[in-house]
Amino acid sequence: MTKILIVGGVAGGASAAARARRLSEEAEIIMFERGPFVSFANCGLPYHIGGEIQDRDKLLLQTPESFLARFNVDVRVMHEVIAINRHAKTITVKNLLDGSEYDEGYDFLLLSPGASPIVPPIAGIDNPLTHSLRNIPDMDRILNTLKTKQVAHATVVGGGFIGLEMMEAFHALGINTSLIEMADQVMTPVDREMAGFVHAEIKHKGIDLQLGVALESVEYQSTNEQENLLLTLNNGQQLETDILIMAIGVRPEIQLAQQAGLQIGELGGIYTTPSMQTSDPSIYAVGDAVEEQDFVTGNRTLVPLAGPANRQGRMAADNMLGRDETYQGTQGTAICKVFDLAVASTGKNEKQLKRDGVIYEKVYVHTASHASYYPGAEIVSFKMLFDPKSGKILGAQAVGKDGIDKRIDVMAVAQRAGMTVEQLQHLELTYAPPYGSAKDVINQAAFVANNLIKGDATAIHYDEITNLTDDQILLDVRNPGELKNVGFIAGAINIPVDQLRQRMDELPKDKEIVIYCQVGLRGNVAYRQLVNNGYKAKNLIGGYRTYLFAQA
Amino acid sequence: MTKILIVGGVAGGASAAARARRLSEEAEIIMFERGPFVSFANCGLPYHIGGEIQDRDKLLLQTPESFLARFNVDVRVMHEVIAINRHAKTITVKNLLDGSEYDEGYDFLLLSPGASPIVPPIAGIDNPLTHSLRNIPDMDRILNTLKTKQVAHATVVGGGFIGLEMMEAFHALGINTSLIEMADQVMTPVDREMAGFVHAEIKHKGIDLQLGVALESVEYQSTNEQENLLLTLNNGQQLETDILIMAIGVRPEIQLAQQAGLQIGELGGIYTTPSMQTSDPSIYAVGDAVEEQDFVTGNRTLVPLAGPANRQGRMAADNMLGRDETYQGTQGTAICKVFDLAVASTGKNEKQLKRDGVIYEKVYVHTASHASYYPGAEIVSFKMLFDPKSGKILGAQAVGKDGIDKRIDVMAVAQRAGMTVEQLQHLELTYAPPYGSAKDVINQAAFVANNLIKGDATAIHYDEITNLTDDQILLDVRNPGELKNVGFIAGAINIPVDQLRQRMDELPKDKEIVIYCQVGLRGNVAYRQLVNNGYKAKNLIGGYRTYLFAQA
Repeated sequence: MTKILIVGGVAGGASAAARARRLSEEAEIIMFERGPFVSFANCGLPYHIGGEIQDRDKLLLQTPESFLARFNVDVRVMHEVIAINRHAKTITVKNLLDGSEYDEGYDFLLLSPGASPIVPPIAGIDNPLTHSLRNIPDMDRILNTLKTKQVAHATVVGGGFIGLEMMEAFHALGINTSLIEMADQVMTPVDREMAGFVHAEIKHKGIDLQLGVALESVEYQSTNEQENLLLTLNNGQQLETDILIMAIGVRPEIQLAQQAGLQIGELGGIYTTPSMQTSDPSIYAVGDAVEEQDFVTGNRTLVPLAGPANRQGRMAADNMLGRDETYQGTQGTAICKVFDLAVASTGKNEKQLKRDGVIYEKVYVHTASHASYYPGAEIVSFKMLFDPKSGKILGAQAVGKDGIDKRIDVMAVAQRAGMTVEQLQHLELTYAPPYGSAKDVINQAAFVANNLIKGDATAIHYDEITNLTDDQILLDVRNPGELKNVGFIAGAINIPVDQLRQRMDELPKDKEIVIYCQVGLRGNVAYRQLVNNGYKAKNLIGGYRTYLFAQA
Repeated sequence: MTKILIVGGVAGGASAAARARRLSEEAEIIMFERGPFVSFANCGLPYHIGGEIQDRDKLLLQTPESFLARFNVDVRVMHEVIAINRHAKTITVKNLLDGSEYDEGYDFLLLSPGASPIVPPIAGIDNPLTHSLRNIPDMDRILNTLKTKQVAHATVVGGGFIGLEMMEAFHALGINTSLIEMADQVMTPVDREMAGFVHAEIKHKGIDLQLGVALESVEYQSTNEQENLLLTLNNGQQLETDILIMAIGVRPEIQLAQQAGLQIGELGGIYTTPSMQTSDPSIYAVGDAVEEQDFVTGNRTLVPLAGPANRQGRMAADNMLGRDETYQGTQGTAICKVFDLAVASTGKNEKQLKRDGVIYEKVYVHTASHASYYPGAEIVSFKMLFDPKSGKILGAQAVGKDGIDKRIDVMAVAQRAGMTVEQLQHLELTYAPPYGSAKDVINQAAFVANNLIKGDATAIHYDEITNLTDDQILLDVRNPGELKNVGFIAGAINIPVDQLRQRMDELPKDKEIVIYCQVGLRGNVAYRQLVNNGYKAKNLIGGYRTYLFAQA
């Protein structure tokens, strides 16, 4: 009879427990959770705070009782595993309710401890109005603060998933909110220029967005009347706030593994093989605490996301019970709702590719989420990174109000399948006016990418357009009304694309014509006209819209 | 200088014209359209009739003038091409405005004539109140009938895309509507049991849905007071109606090609090579009129859809101008909105696989479109067909109120990339509570499929469950309240899954236990328990929900 002990009862641990029982009725399975809850919806916590998920019970997906009834798993909440005794194949467990300790033996041990919020050593940070958000008790403390204190202003430090979701929650509650982010952008999985769309949305909703700013110190101020925090930022500004959420990131929980002498990877996560085994073959580890393989680069990576955790848990159970499953790497596919926008990505972003010295090309398209003549179409702003030689997909990012998840899912599948941007042209996606277009966003991006690969287009990018030389001239091929309403790039001359054939002789043949339109489509038509008539030209990929929002 | 003539100015023809000009500034390009409009949104016509698209001009994507200005294409509307003179490499064109005829020479000719609605030779069908819907003038005639006549009741014959969309349009206008379909289901790209969800929705909206019924004759009745139609159906019923839409399908327009001696395929479409060449190397053909290769089977197929037409047009232009692009087959990916539902599919359905003698297995899952604890989640009912040996994806179908397009897009990409259902387990799709689940619909379907392939589950299907032998007993593992509220299968005994371990001895070991739950998930837990305890068992894939809606 196999005895399996599981440390941590949320995504990875709970998935493993259920799968192990389905595979074996005889196995003894005990799951330890130091908190009071198992299998709770940690991704739902900000939405309960914001009121979108009204019923707290909806976050509690399973209880120890339901786990026992359905899966015959002995779930021990408020039990912290404090040591692994690898030679004895036992763990030492502390009952947090009565303080007692005991040892429990195992054949296989699964570590699924997760990751904990990073709280930097900022002066004054340890105070009753500062919170991080990882679990149900954290959520309850924040809700209690909102209920018992006068919270007119909230500050969120960190513009990642949880920071953005907490910002939105406070806004939904009618609380004035500041978002402080040390980097020059929120949502680092996407590149800076794509984050610009998110910045615009955040500001549009009235959030005080402070980019490139760090929190230096916190002063807790309390009188009989009220209590609040005085924040000092590294730009010299001071800010009074009633609640502070620290959401700058998470760090793998590795103490237990480290103390037991298990190998820790160079990124600071528990080392795992593709079978989800640690350096001790009797001990598996999954989820936010582990280092796994990056699908695109083959390097080690830390990806604290629920999807990989769940699948790794299932797979670890398979392997503990004698199967031979391998985890096939993580792309890091992610999405976040930011007010009316979704922002999503898969694979590598441009920052990472630059850092790793990978040769890449990129395209931007901005096109309707479904047939533009059918009500409700919204612009999908889409970026695709690829190898300009092989056409291999390196990554994709998208922002917009509709159809963002779909486009990134398509790219995640295509990338995992090893498709090239050449093959993306042929994708046959669902089309009816309420759902898509005969040439979908992805087909269009593939057309642009293939034009670049085949030499049918010559790209200039948004960040090169302000440093033109005397041998280049800037041509805006939109209609004059668009320049007036939407803006234009200083120094551009304006010939609408539909007049270009007639007015081509206004352009010099000895200079390079740098063409732009709103999104790049008319620019391409103009580019082809000019090049086919013997001009030198480049087209601004993604057009004025990419250029404009890169500055937001 | 290459001279290209294009017959037909909508999806395929217009795409080809634009692409050809982008590739060559010198080519002479003339596009002939016998109707008054080019490049109109034919997929939008029913939505303008129903009022969802209010502005008629939105359907007119391009005009002859705009095509000339932007692409220097000579667009001749109301010009019908009446003959191809292949030896002379000319066509004969009739100007429908003045009746004059002339010849025009070509280097390359592109045929994009489309497909025409099939109107069967039913007695009395030729009357002022009977319409089909293919183009803007058809739409205008229907709108005129609605405006000038008293239309209290409408009848649509045919439950395909246009039939369903017209049914919805009439309903949106507050008109009582009958939908008559000769087959036992609407929306034939999906299988009968998946169409059941659509039938339930159609009936729920108050439509008079008549399946397995054909129209036998039509009598036009007119008095001073009013005019209407008396329809006689093949079930003996008579039906008075004020407008009749014939939408039983379309037939490739091949007269011109046939008269010119071009090869016609055995399915009745213009034969094309993967380069979109006809049997005459100077003549290309694209869109609804052509036979192309089926991506899954490699056989010839007719797929009258906008996506393939657009991509084929682009590709034909490439090849006419010296490139070497090949069309890589059609999966037939399709979607249709039916009131609050979307119904979609890609690849082959079960009917086709049976007919072709292909060995297949299938799974059904019904799972939330996004995290069920986040507001707005709807059930995605999903069917996947695959090769039980190789795991190759054969087809997929989905119905529901949210996230249907996304799931079929994912499957369309995975199928085109040649992925197996084993690989689908590892897909890493976007997940945040508003958009998806940590284990997406597709991951879950892949888990079920792999359980079958690996022998971890034994399937029984909805259509086998009513013919059990004396050696089988039916076990419902849902909670008693569910049986009461949702219904159950006659003869089932009820032991809730969470009591099964305690009550297992109530079940006989010498019989096969046929287990079902609501969607198949708890059934699988029960199945594993029973089998791991030495019972013989099968689990109803897709559960009671599949069984129930198969009858709708």
